[in-house]
Amino acid sequence: MKIATYANARTTLEARKGVGKAFIAAFRSGSVMGFLLAADGLLVLYIAINLFKIYYKTEWEGLFEAITGYGLGGSSVALFGRVGGGIYTKAADVGADLVGKVERNIPEDDPRNPAVIADNVGDNVGDIAGMGSDLFGSFAESSCAALVVASISSFGTSHDFTAMCFPLLISSMGIVVCLITTLFATDFYEIKEVNQIEPALKRQLIISTALMTLGILLVCFLALPSSFTIYNLGSTPKVVKWWHLFFCVAVGLWAGLIIGYTTEYFTSNAYSPVQDVADSCRTGAATNIIFGLALGYKSVIIPIFAIAVAIYVSFALAVFYGIAVAALGMLSTIATGLAIDAYGPISDNAGGIAEMAGMSHHIRERTDALDAAGNTTAAIGKGFAIGSAALVSLALFGAYVSRASLTSVDVLSAKVFIGLIVGAMLPYWFSAMTMKSVGKAALSMVEEVRRQFNTIPGLMEGINNPDYATCVKISTDASIKEMIPPGALVMVTPLVVGILFGVETLAGLLAGALVSGVQIAISASNTGGAWDNAKKYIEAGASEHARSLGPKGSDAHKAAVIGDTVGDPLKDTSGPSLNILIKLMAVESLVFAPFFAAHGGLLFKIG
Amino acid sequence: MKIATYANARTTLEARKGVGKAFIAAFRSGSVMGFLLAADGLLVLYIAINLFKIYYKTEWEGLFEAITGYGLGGSSVALFGRVGGGIYTKAADVGADLVGKVERNIPEDDPRNPAVIADNVGDNVGDIAGMGSDLFGSFAESSCAALVVASISSFGTSHDFTAMCFPLLISSMGIVVCLITTLFATDFYEIKEVNQIEPALKRQLIISTALMTLGILLVCFLALPSSFTIYNLGSTPKVVKWWHLFFCVAVGLWAGLIIGYTTEYFTSNAYSPVQDVADSCRTGAATNIIFGLALGYKSVIIPIFAIAVAIYVSFALAVFYGIAVAALGMLSTIATGLAIDAYGPISDNAGGIAEMAGMSHHIRERTDALDAAGNTTAAIGKGFAIGSAALVSLALFGAYVSRASLTSVDVLSAKVFIGLIVGAMLPYWFSAMTMKSVGKAALSMVEEVRRQFNTIPGLMEGINNPDYATCVKISTDASIKEMIPPGALVMVTPLVVGILFGVETLAGLLAGALVSGVQIAISASNTGGAWDNAKKYIEAGASEHARSLGPKGSDAHKAAVIGDTVGDPLKDTSGPSLNILIKLMAVESLVFAPFFAAHGGLLFKIG
Repeated sequence: MKIATYANARTTLEARKGVGKAFIAAFRSGSVMGFLLAADGLLVLYIAINLFKIYYKTEWEGLFEAITGYGLGGSSVALFGRVGGGIYTKAADVGADLVGKVERNIPEDDPRNPAVIADNVGDNVGDIAGMGSDLFGSFAESSCAALVVASISSFGTSHDFTAMCFPLLISSMGIVVCLITTLFATDFYEIKEVNQIEPALKRQLIISTALMTLGILLVCFLALPSSFTIYNLGSTPKVVKWWHLFFCVAVGLWAGLIIGYTTEYFTSNAYSPVQDVADSCRTGAATNIIFGLALGYKSVIIPIFAIAVAIYVSFALAVFYGIAVAALGMLSTIATGLAIDAYGPISDNAGGIAEMAGMSHHIRERTDALDAAGNTTAAIGKGFAIGSAALVSLALFGAYVSRASLTSVDVLSAKVFIGLIVGAMLPYWFSAMTMKSVGKAALSMVEEVRRQFNTIPGLMEGINNPDYATCVKISTDASIKEMIPPGALVMVTPLVVGILFGVETLAGLLAGALVSGVQIAISASNTGGAWDNAKKYIEAGASEHARSLGPKGSDAHKAAVIGDTVGDPLKDTSGPSLNILIKLMAVESLVFAPFFAAHGGLLFKIG
Repeated sequence: MKIATYANARTTLEARKGVGKAFIAAFRSGSVMGFLLAADGLLVLYIAINLFKIYYKTEWEGLFEAITGYGLGGSSVALFGRVGGGIYTKAADVGADLVGKVERNIPEDDPRNPAVIADNVGDNVGDIAGMGSDLFGSFAESSCAALVVASISSFGTSHDFTAMCFPLLISSMGIVVCLITTLFATDFYEIKEVNQIEPALKRQLIISTALMTLGILLVCFLALPSSFTIYNLGSTPKVVKWWHLFFCVAVGLWAGLIIGYTTEYFTSNAYSPVQDVADSCRTGAATNIIFGLALGYKSVIIPIFAIAVAIYVSFALAVFYGIAVAALGMLSTIATGLAIDAYGPISDNAGGIAEMAGMSHHIRERTDALDAAGNTTAAIGKGFAIGSAALVSLALFGAYVSRASLTSVDVLSAKVFIGLIVGAMLPYWFSAMTMKSVGKAALSMVEEVRRQFNTIPGLMEGINNPDYATCVKISTDASIKEMIPPGALVMVTPLVVGILFGVETLAGLLAGALVSGVQIAISASNTGGAWDNAKKYIEAGASEHARSLGPKGSDAHKAAVIGDTVGDPLKDTSGPSLNILIKLMAVESLVFAPFFAAHGGLLFKIG
């Protein structure tokens, strides 16, 4: 958060020197955050393992089961970051826009708008802290899932500490690779034109993926024994060769790239899907909404196939350990991913600072150009977060099943099937809550902003300053208060189901929530991203087609603004919050699995 | 269709005599359709069984496996009715509204609008023929699923033809019960006021459910042996008492009532959910869309719990036979359900005829009032259709699993899990296709209507008639052409998955599509219904609150119209079409199961 604030200011200052300098400032700041996140997570985990080792000595199974608490902790923070942060940022954003831009007709980020500070803070809270904590949660959980499985495999039983630390080594290699990758964006090439930014950011993804593939090969070759066995849910342990694990990690890494590229195709206004959505604004807001929803639904297809292939390959090679390291593979380029993602809100906020500081219009134009590219890359980051959340949840699901001593989760059993169908419903319940929360929080913000415009004399004329602090307080209070119902749904459901219905129904529930939630999360993020960029496409008017729809204020543009507003809670609150739903329920079930297995299923015991 | 056309005209004529007479005309016509559907389906099935008996003699297993073709046939017709009909009706509706109402500012159903005939025909095609074929498909499939399981249970092996026909007897009793129920609406009470209509229709649901509960008890007691065994997927057959089956059928019946009532609560403008959505129009179309989507998500919760309880109870008592008869229980009041559902489009069309025939304004007002109640009841009908589709698909899934000789479908197997996650994606893919199809078809309709207004002289003045036939042709051609991609997705997917990936992945796929599809179908239908009624709520202005949002043409009303337009394809095309997706894939897999079991899974055989 602190770095984000610094980054915003720095980017604004650099924007005075030109687009290229501003880009470097924004991108470097994003990268620093990515590196800090990855390095901190890794360091704390490594220290924790070594501290626990003093207590548990050679009892590694107990040691790494205790480590699962690290994953639960990471995910709980993510609940605050993603859900609370998502409510915070959208309440401020919608509140600031509806009164400032629409009712009072003053520009975005105008210092006369009382909610402007809350809006800018919100970008950091939701888009940076939220995303960071989400990815950190995924990293912590997939590492823990891998460690739990490894501790009861030959790595653990033969006390091979290097092989045991394989998940950590993958992440460490990722930091080195991302460091090299960053140089390609900031030092090896120079950005001179605005339209070079999006390709440069996309190149980052390919470079990091290509280099990381080599890095994985190196780690696998150096850290792993040539052959070893992996725990396999009650069956005979699976014999795995070192290069099998290379394919597990690599398939996750490359699935991430495919998800990233698909997301870009469906949310960037350089391609036909977003242009079609923009074109549909010609016949009004209704067709814009219909086309946007259909785009989101369609954008689910390729990512799901990529995830399915990653699951099949990694499971076939190394069972649930394979899934966990595939998730780590996808997350290994987390520093680059976070840099690309954070770049957007940093540029957005830099523009806000320029506007508030009354700096020249050239600066604002530069930061706006930076921000447009950032919208697409933020969607890419979300794609990564969802894809890795799916793999992580499945790895946790595997760890849960083994700790609950289940040898099969049979859909033909009514206990499992009712879990499956109710689990598939939970993302809808959760989304209904988060969307309603944003609506309520935004409404109180609207009222406060209106009140200030009506009661503070000389506010519109710029003579008196608005009361920024009250707006910040409203967002803060609302986000904490409104987080309680969806948070409770996530935290209480596994406990209730585990205790009343038992481990089998809970397994069904987790599987159902996973397969249903991942679809809604992807479609909601992409629909929102597409609407946002369709609006930007019309505003920028860079092509003949775009100009025929514009300019700002035309009927088509008004229709696009409606789509953008609908998309805000979808892409920044309810959609990405589902990552937390599926991960947190899985890690909580994992922690309580032995308890549920021993004492759960009360309702069926009575019957 | 023919009856529907007659019903429209008759209702218009009766409307001259008053609301009560018009209601009776509309409701009786709807009931006749319901009875014909149920009776025809039953008769043809009974004749088919007896004809096949001549050929198969006492080889009942072969006989009833051959009967599954009846289910596949019923579902294939439903594909045309629901998907094709859905595209037809919405292309015509949106096309007629966008040019006629919005651009040319002429009233709805004005005979000067070239698309007006296509629009009226569409109501019959989509809302009556589509719904009818969907429910008929459910009836045919659940009967077939029950018969297949019964043929390898003690009913079949001991050649007890009466017990074997238990599913048919339940449906027959349903016809008798619905006949009595209809009298309560048309003969025992008299409708004098408009606001008596909705309670009268709702009363129909309760009366039919209560009477049917007694009817089921009677059938179970008379037709079933006191104890018998049911086939149980390779395990020892399950011993079932006659009153166990009573509970199976009854739990399905009552789950249907709960789904119906929940749907009513979320889509009728007499309750707070729709009023909240209407209120959100105050801040514009964007908040209306957000609140509507959140309402749809929330409306999924109770129906899913009702379905889960029905599944658990009926499965625990009589395995997959229990699920199949629970589905038949829900469908046993099909005649009443269809009457309530068809009542809406009949009244709507009656209004259209009155408008086109230039009849007095009183008649139009009466039919409009009838129509408003019909919107909510149409949503109830959709709820029933989705709920029964879920149970039917599960019953078919059970029959598929037994024919494919699977003894478990284990989520922990990667083969099954990738099926599950891809299956959960299919409803999104399918919805993207159907929504896009409506968009494209509506666009060609808009162009044709515009062309006629611009080129036919004297059209706006009412001197020359428009070319209605071309608009009908456009809707017809578009619906058939645009039906191909979603139809192909449904028909080809089970074949591809079965042949390449085998029976286990296909089982996962069916389960995934079922648990994900049912949620989208419910939320899409209810969101659409809520937007429609929120608009009607503002237009009617029956309360202080509603008047504060109106009148017609106010900003809030304009926002409500946008929501209504977005909801049209959701509630009338993509949502209900998902019933067909999940049922047709399941019944097709059932038919090809032995082939897939013997020759499928080519891809895994290579690996």
